[in-house]
Amino acid sequence: MINVAIIGVTGYTGLDSIEILLRHPQAEITYITSSTKEVLPIESVHPKLAGRLKLDVEPLDFDELASRADVALCCLPHKVSMSYVPEILKRGVKVVDFSADYRLKDLSIYEKYYVPHTDPENIKQAVYGLPELYREQIKTASLVANPGCFPTSSTLGLVPLLRNGYVETDTVIVNSVSGATGAGKKLADGVHFPNLNENIRPYGIATHRHGPEMEQIASEAAGKEVSVLFQPHIGSFDRGILSSIYCRPAKEISAQELLELFNGFYADEPFVQVFDSPVSVKDVANTNQCHIHPARVKGQIVVFAAIDNLVKGASGQAVQNMNIMSGFDETLGLK
Amino acid sequence: MINVAIIGVTGYTGLDSIEILLRHPQAEITYITSSTKEVLPIESVHPKLAGRLKLDVEPLDFDELASRADVALCCLPHKVSMSYVPEILKRGVKVVDFSADYRLKDLSIYEKYYVPHTDPENIKQAVYGLPELYREQIKTASLVANPGCFPTSSTLGLVPLLRNGYVETDTVIVNSVSGATGAGKKLADGVHFPNLNENIRPYGIATHRHGPEMEQIASEAAGKEVSVLFQPHIGSFDRGILSSIYCRPAKEISAQELLELFNGFYADEPFVQVFDSPVSVKDVANTNQCHIHPARVKGQIVVFAAIDNLVKGASGQAVQNMNIMSGFDETLGLK
Amino acid sequence: MINVAIIGVTGYTGLDSIEILLRHPQAEITYITSSTKEVLPIESVHPKLAGRLKLDVEPLDFDELASRADVALCCLPHKVSMSYVPEILKRGVKVVDFSADYRLKDLSIYEKYYVPHTDPENIKQAVYGLPELYREQIKTASLVANPGCFPTSSTLGLVPLLRNGYVETDTVIVNSVSGATGAGKKLADGVHFPNLNENIRPYGIATHRHGPEMEQIASEAAGKEVSVLFQPHIGSFDRGILSSIYCRPAKEISAQELLELFNGFYADEPFVQVFDSPVSVKDVANTNQCHIHPARVKGQIVVFAAIDNLVKGASGQAVQNMNIMSGFDETLGLK
Amino acid sequence: MINVAIIGVTGYTGLDSIEILLRHPQAEITYITSSTKEVLPIESVHPKLAGRLKLDVEPLDFDELASRADVALCCLPHKVSMSYVPEILKRGVKVVDFSADYRLKDLSIYEKYYVPHTDPENIKQAVYGLPELYREQIKTASLVANPGCFPTSSTLGLVPLLRNGYVETDTVIVNSVSGATGAGKKLADGVHFPNLNENIRPYGIATHRHGPEMEQIASEAAGKEVSVLFQPHIGSFDRGILSSIYCRPAKEISAQELLELFNGFYADEPFVQVFDSPVSVKDVANTNQCHIHPARVKGQIVVFAAIDNLVKGASGQAVQNMNIMSGFDETLGLK
Repeated sequence: MINVAIIGVTGYTGLDSIEILLRHPQAEITYITSSTKEVLPIESVHPKLAGRLKLDVEPLDFDELASRADVALCCLPHKVSMSYVPEILKRGVKVVDFSADYRLKDLSIYEKYYVPHTDPENIKQAVYGLPELYREQIKTASLVANPGCFPTSSTLGLVPLLRNGYVETDTVIVNSVSGATGAGKKLADGVHFPNLNENIRPYGIATHRHGPEMEQIASEAAGKEVSVLFQPHIGSFDRGILSSIYCRPAKEISAQELLELFNGFYADEPFVQVFDSPVSVKDVANTNQCHIHPARVKGQIVVFAAIDNLVKGASGQAVQNMNIMSGFDETLGLK
Repeated sequence: MINVAIIGVTGYTGLDSIEILLRHPQAEITYITSSTKEVLPIESVHPKLAGRLKLDVEPLDFDELASRADVALCCLPHKVSMSYVPEILKRGVKVVDFSADYRLKDLSIYEKYYVPHTDPENIKQAVYGLPELYREQIKTASLVANPGCFPTSSTLGLVPLLRNGYVETDTVIVNSVSGATGAGKKLADGVHFPNLNENIRPYGIATHRHGPEMEQIASEAAGKEVSVLFQPHIGSFDRGILSSIYCRPAKEISAQELLELFNGFYADEPFVQVFDSPVSVKDVANTNQCHIHPARVKGQIVVFAAIDNLVKGASGQAVQNMNIMSGFDETLGLK
Repeated sequence: MINVAIIGVTGYTGLDSIEILLRHPQAEITYITSSTKEVLPIESVHPKLAGRLKLDVEPLDFDELASRADVALCCLPHKVSMSYVPEILKRGVKVVDFSADYRLKDLSIYEKYYVPHTDPENIKQAVYGLPELYREQIKTASLVANPGCFPTSSTLGLVPLLRNGYVETDTVIVNSVSGATGAGKKLADGVHFPNLNENIRPYGIATHRHGPEMEQIASEAAGKEVSVLFQPHIGSFDRGILSSIYCRPAKEISAQELLELFNGFYADEPFVQVFDSPVSVKDVANTNQCHIHPARVKGQIVVFAAIDNLVKGASGQAVQNMNIMSGFDETLGLK
Repeated sequence: MINVAIIGVTGYTGLDSIEILLRHPQAEITYITSSTKEVLPIESVHPKLAGRLKLDVEPLDFDELASRADVALCCLPHKVSMSYVPEILKRGVKVVDFSADYRLKDLSIYEKYYVPHTDPENIKQAVYGLPELYREQIKTASLVANPGCFPTSSTLGLVPLLRNGYVETDTVIVNSVSGATGAGKKLADGVHFPNLNENIRPYGIATHRHGPEMEQIASEAAGKEVSVLFQPHIGSFDRGILSSIYCRPAKEISAQELLELFNGFYADEPFVQVFDSPVSVKDVANTNQCHIHPARVKGQIVVFAAIDNLVKGASGQAVQNMNIMSGFDETLGLK
């Protein structure tokens, strides 16, 4: 049994983290915080939790955190995260960090897309929390950088190909469509109901921050630099990401071999399912699963990968990482 | 041919007014304004109009308005409207006003629900713009108060009953569900996509401003005071209002007679259709129609009335009023 | 630890029953059936369960069922259910039945709304599975008739008032809006996406079968006959029912006393939460909670009650009943 | 003034054709047919048209058609269309055909994707109805093959590049997302509300019939064979197609030059608007516009093109073609 704190509990990933941990047989939520100055009942923040969690939201106090929790899930925006995480780590509490602050190993790329980094030291020890690729390192990590939602879906769809040299690495195209929760709780024109409902539109053209994150993981898998053209879209649904990935083959592979490649690669993975038919975001909604369908089309390799952006793309994967870090069965709370 | 100005063109009713007038064979849009300080191309405000309307949005100037337009559609919020309308009227331009400022004849009720009124004089001459009830007065009006969206659907469903004394007037229940555009363009938690999508919720419990408006029109129709319990809800769709109206019968009427009552009452109306089967908001979306289904259920009279809140509930009805004020065929631009 | 069978697993309630039982610490799913002739992997029926449940869907065999399960959740349509349930009961397996077959005590009402009943004997011993009202009887029942989704939301909103004589019983109005899953998996014009999306419409006017079910439970609570005018609507969302209930008060009660009445009535209930502010279906989605907001409006009593139609309105309530029948903590699997 | 028949009026394109023609100042709908055996009031087929069109749906009679109409819009499925069109043409009535039957010039490709062709003669004279490319031929055509919805959006996005040799022609990737009306009125699992709502999924992988149609038009524009990898998806909205098109540049072109290329190409087109910012399907809903945003991303050329699949992708474009064939201003009824 471990005690878990959730830092920054007011957003969508905070809510989903609570929902998942409420079902976890070996973890108890003992401390939840927000930027609030006063203590608030959780149902005033998330009415959905009324009668389900008897715990108040408190202002963050690092010593209090250390006295109450073994692990902290940090659901904080970038920049804020890197100012809190060192304080938590130095008190001996393990961290799964949801922000981008510890994902990019190359500081210059981080600083180009985000802000100057104030905690470069801890980047070195941080492990990228994609268990399917880095499970061994996660086991002993004190700080896990939980992957971005888009990179989770796209790298799971790409890595079997890249590891085995099956695709050209000069330009891999990742066309993704995300649900609206990916844009967060903050009011914005693009997420105003009458603007997004019955709509789909591209955004972050040539500028989205998840591109370099994909390239880092893809390049590690390929053993050489991979260029990823990542194009996100936002659609009129709450949850989920569908990535349609287009690659040019670098060597011959039949449709059947392609399917076998993916089936073999993910045979022992509890949260990746390979299909010989189209996948959809609804089939993974509210689950920690990634559904993948690899296909041959017009001489190209096309891979479809679907996840729930808030679960496998955030809170579920965080609990999966927490389980691994704690020596638990990886699937606790996630079935 | 008349020249039309649209004052306050940036909102949803401004856009719909333009869409309708673009198809109007006898009206030309000659002046469109907003609270902007600079002149803006219309497509920067409504990309949907790119290439379709060659007219810039300008800051409002009353003399300019008078020199360019015969009629003004005022798509302004309450309070702002009553400070602009007298200026427009005094320059000889007719007005269809979308706000609540000239709808309520009883100043004390207006001031209880809204703010102190600064133009009580013009309330007297204002005609309530529900053509099915006040067509004759509209013909000669200089100022028409375009009805609220909820009152339009509910009074059209109630008036045939009230005019003929068929229902008890102590408590009529109007349960309405509106689409999200009814909440306007302003960002708000309740209209944030992840909060409204896949949702329905009541709001304005015991406080919604359209209640007294319904009571005024219902009481005029009944010839005595009518008490209306009006309960609005917001649903996860863009357009439309469905009002489910529950009344206790005051005298006997069979289902067949009920249908005949409504059919007779609306026989010559171009924009009210009576059905002997359920109605829905989708069947009236983007039209100026009101679909009504009256029924007998468990000894009560239940009437379902559906409109598009932005068309028959706002811009379409405004053009219908403008047509009547201009001596045109009432349906121009609205077929 | 108990073994659970799910009979009729292909529909939405079958899927939700599995989702809930997968998280249940004291129940194991051991047998799942459908009308299939062949054995099918569960993911071919519900791709969402790929990799999450290792169990095939089998044709139903009563002896096999008895050898493998202690309790059966019967997710069958009416008529089918009453031909299977006696076979299951006689083999000593407890049943929670999702159909309407054992809910109505008055056979003549059942047969008026449904079909001739072929198992009247077992109606007598069946307990209506609304734990908030019939918990004691459920504890020792062999057959629990799981309530309809609409009656669950409306009776939870009405019973505190009826038990205490606060409202007139001649006509209680229940205006409900349900999500699309309530219409089931069967293809139909009304649930075709382009027909339902962006829409809301009434249906089952004066004929819906849940009306008499509400009246039975309401009358038991009131100790006298209650007439319920029940009007369902279908909305463009997946999950949830919002019931807006309108009653005329039979004696004086202030808004504050009303709130206290409900708070007191449900103080110890794990799955009913009383609010002093509007409730919504999204706040109960994927939970077994019923959220209730009682209010005074225009001299009437208005109660808003929201549930997830597939959870508290079906599968969640079934597991709640199963827990009570098994002597478990009532909330197992449902937090 | 011309008289127009709509053949096959019961589907979504039939309804939209009527909606557009109701606003057309120079066209009158004089004959509407379906596969019905009896004469039906139009509102029994499309309740949305109640009170708006006084015309019954009749069984098709070719002589009657010829006596009543100058032009026929054939909203029929493939195969049916090619058995009706010759009968209509031989009676001297011009045809805009919505099916795929006269789009593909290469009979062998048609027969591979569809069925054996029974009217190869008329293929020769048929003109592909994309006015932006084939306006001159449309002017004098008796038979216009109205383009598919996906090819309309993608070819408008590609042609300025292909005509000028700016992109490699070996593999152009067209990733498209369509709304649900694209799947038609026929009930199907994939368009059942609870299956499509809150969802997005690919379909027609490597098999969609619009791929060869795109290749035909793209190759004509390029003057050499173009290979198009076309991947459609279906999303949870009613109307619209967003195509995200990925090309490798064949020669240097800056972002600014790219924008100028498109601006120049479409400068005089009333229904194509070029943007320097993201486009969306909602901004073209219920309009005949195509919104295009060309961009440079990671060394590639990415073009986003949005249309309403039922308007510019079907009924609107058909009326545009009809206008051109009739010597009318091309925009009549479409503003």
